[in-house]
Amino acid sequence: MRAKIHVTLKNGVLDPQGKAVHHALNDLGFAEVRDVSVGKYLELELDGASGQEAEHRVREMCERLLANPVIESYRFELEP
Amino acid sequence: MRAKIHVTLKNGVLDPQGKAVHHALNDLGFAEVRDVSVGKYLELELDGASGQEAEHRVREMCERLLANPVIESYRFELEP
Repeated sequence: MRAKIHVTLKNGVLDPQGKAVHHALNDLGFAEVRDVSVGKYLELELDGASGQEAEHRVREMCERLLANPVIESYRFELEP
Repeated sequence: MRAKIHVTLKNGVLDPQGKAVHHALNDLGFAEVRDVSVGKYLELELDGASGQEAEHRVREMCERLLANPVIESYRFELEP
């Protein structure tokens, strides 16, 4: 089973990496870029459990390690 | 218009960040995790052009700044 996880900064949290990419794109001539946010994308290969149990475990991984719940949101999909 | 961009390491490229997350998850008791890969996820807000022109521009941004084509793949979707 595979989990595809997106971790992004919550609204209102300062995103210095996004700002740096934004400025760099503008400097390269991409003036149409109005805003940039940068997050993480993780793919996990999982053995065993499927369905609700896997969902529960991946949620726990996100809460305990993969995301910082104070400043980050996460979402994920599971694929067989 | 919004571009959602995934940048991931190509197959066979060493992924030290993925390995570190993998070990950390195993250490936390998530023994079912068999492999982890870590990539970037970017969201860009774009003014102006839509359709083919926007697609062309975002592809150029990926090639020139957002991904390192030697070791990374990228894919993106555009949303109105």
